[in-house]
Amino acid sequence: MTPWWRADAKALDVVAGEAARDRQNRLTKPPGSLGRLEEVAVLLAAMQGREKPGLSTPWITVFAGDHGVVAEGIAAYPQAVTGQMLSNFVAGGAAVAVLAREIGARLEVVDAGTLVAEPPPGVIQDKPARGTGNSAREAAMTPEQLDHALEAGRRAAERALTSGADLFIGGEMGIGNSTVAAALGCALLDLAGAELAGPGTGLDAAGVGRKAAVIDRALALHGLRPGPATGDVFAHRALQCVGGFELAGLAGAYIACAQAGLPALVDGFIATAAALAACRLNPSVRYWLLFAHRSAEPGHARLLAALEARPLLDMDLRLGEGSGAAAAFPLLRLACALHGGMATFAEAGVGDGA
Amino acid sequence: MTPWWRADAKALDVVAGEAARDRQNRLTKPPGSLGRLEEVAVLLAAMQGREKPGLSTPWITVFAGDHGVVAEGIAAYPQAVTGQMLSNFVAGGAAVAVLAREIGARLEVVDAGTLVAEPPPGVIQDKPARGTGNSAREAAMTPEQLDHALEAGRRAAERALTSGADLFIGGEMGIGNSTVAAALGCALLDLAGAELAGPGTGLDAAGVGRKAAVIDRALALHGLRPGPATGDVFAHRALQCVGGFELAGLAGAYIACAQAGLPALVDGFIATAAALAACRLNPSVRYWLLFAHRSAEPGHARLLAALEARPLLDMDLRLGEGSGAAAAFPLLRLACALHGGMATFAEAGVGDGA
Repeated sequence: MTPWWRADAKALDVVAGEAARDRQNRLTKPPGSLGRLEEVAVLLAAMQGREKPGLSTPWITVFAGDHGVVAEGIAAYPQAVTGQMLSNFVAGGAAVAVLAREIGARLEVVDAGTLVAEPPPGVIQDKPARGTGNSAREAAMTPEQLDHALEAGRRAAERALTSGADLFIGGEMGIGNSTVAAALGCALLDLAGAELAGPGTGLDAAGVGRKAAVIDRALALHGLRPGPATGDVFAHRALQCVGGFELAGLAGAYIACAQAGLPALVDGFIATAAALAACRLNPSVRYWLLFAHRSAEPGHARLLAALEARPLLDMDLRLGEGSGAAAAFPLLRLACALHGGMATFAEAGVGDGA
Repeated sequence: MTPWWRADAKALDVVAGEAARDRQNRLTKPPGSLGRLEEVAVLLAAMQGREKPGLSTPWITVFAGDHGVVAEGIAAYPQAVTGQMLSNFVAGGAAVAVLAREIGARLEVVDAGTLVAEPPPGVIQDKPARGTGNSAREAAMTPEQLDHALEAGRRAAERALTSGADLFIGGEMGIGNSTVAAALGCALLDLAGAELAGPGTGLDAAGVGRKAAVIDRALALHGLRPGPATGDVFAHRALQCVGGFELAGLAGAYIACAQAGLPALVDGFIATAAALAACRLNPSVRYWLLFAHRSAEPGHARLLAALEARPLLDMDLRLGEGSGAAAAFPLLRLACALHGGMATFAEAGVGDGA
């Protein structure tokens, strides 16, 4: 049976996109002078199938997970912080919780696989296991656990759709997950660990070197060298062997959003690694992804390039949680407001220079 | 008598800035992981003199002016568009008017020197003359007209302060004013016209070459070669000979804002040329300027570098009107919200990795 995540994404509405582009050229401004804001409005028009798109109901799901590979000494913070942050998300003190309030987004937190036995009230529990295996010594998860994690992402996308969301933001939290994201990216792009390993939440140079070596060890152990063909079977195995539950949750959510026609705004390094995996599992997903920012994590540029993505912001953010995507959201809303609210040359009685 | 614009800017509150920096390092995130958003919050704390700054009342003044140098064929749009756009600003159909509504900013429009005899209702009239002289053949304005234009800027800043604004955004509109801004920048930075002349609202390569030649002619006519010393007297003369009324209005507003301790968010190429002139008239003004975006106009990077400014956005905007600053405003508001609203490690019971 074909797995659900292989089904094609909804097609973009090319006619609506062209109508939006035409409208942009009739608004009272030199054509192209609103730069990326014009591009975004045209793209959202094609996604929403209407000449004047709008965004009013953003949704944020933060997926949290723990990682066996932390045993290799690759994280700057103790593993207990993953569970502590669950409480900080639901209590409203975490960065993404503050941003969700400010931008009017519904925020939900999913324990997608932390070590916590009993997550705090308000956290959705949808986990294949308490933490992954140590990918430097064994597979991070079983194929069945991966399928559960992908479906947890799909369930989050379905909750967003049911609630009427018009934009999906996926966030993540998990001590050690910049190592996991780098390993996944290296597998999918056929890179050595040193090419994507970075300081994450604050490793020094020696720590980054250790991280790269751990990644190389994991890639070698699982034989994750894609060669020229990197199809969905390889991507599934890479996620299973060196991925993480919250990354798989993100990937599943991106795929389900694309299938349902819900635009997703991708956050930083870790979310982009998950987005890359989603696009390798199902290339049609790419059309439904918008990219929020270029992270300070050095490997992010490489992941973005592989996705031919040009993000909206470049502000040295490197927190994750979906915080960069939430911070970029107002730009999408303003792009729609300009597109729909500006006068045309004809309406305003302004000469268009033609 | 010393002119008003020479008086020192208000001093930043270093103690509040340090308290804010300390707070940033106690918030539940890896230190520095909110990048530019942290820097902005700390800077606003020093400007507002409190550990937790806030922005709730942005103000936008758009200064409009016409330019005699348009007779040299350097503009892509007919000069009548300046006046037509006055109506579009007050009717709410221009980009900056849409953005002002979206970000909750008060918007005022000042006819600072257009050719229009009778500006439409709702436009503030504060003009030294109807249009400047053609700087390629004569001084753009008299010293008295320049002083009037600078004071028009001061009056706008005073209206903002009186209304309780906590951030000033200056916009501009004036067919031909990218030539004026480039000429002013070339004078202040001792550059040839070709180094700052760009397509503006849409010149082709031949048009850009013509524009550069016109700038060189104007600079030579007025002997505007600063040499190593470029003090306030030279800046005043440069504004007078090759400047514009709306640029002088912006410069006067930036100076008055800095003197009163009101942060100003600088827009694109033309606003930055005015900001550079303001800082040459009075170097202490620099501390009160935030920079919104890097414009698609090629000369903008050079002006920003001269001011050691690193703008928030880089989205290929090139419209002016204050639109880029208005689009960047939500990032400042989010920076304040994060700074004031996030939990500290102690409050959240999260381990800080120390």
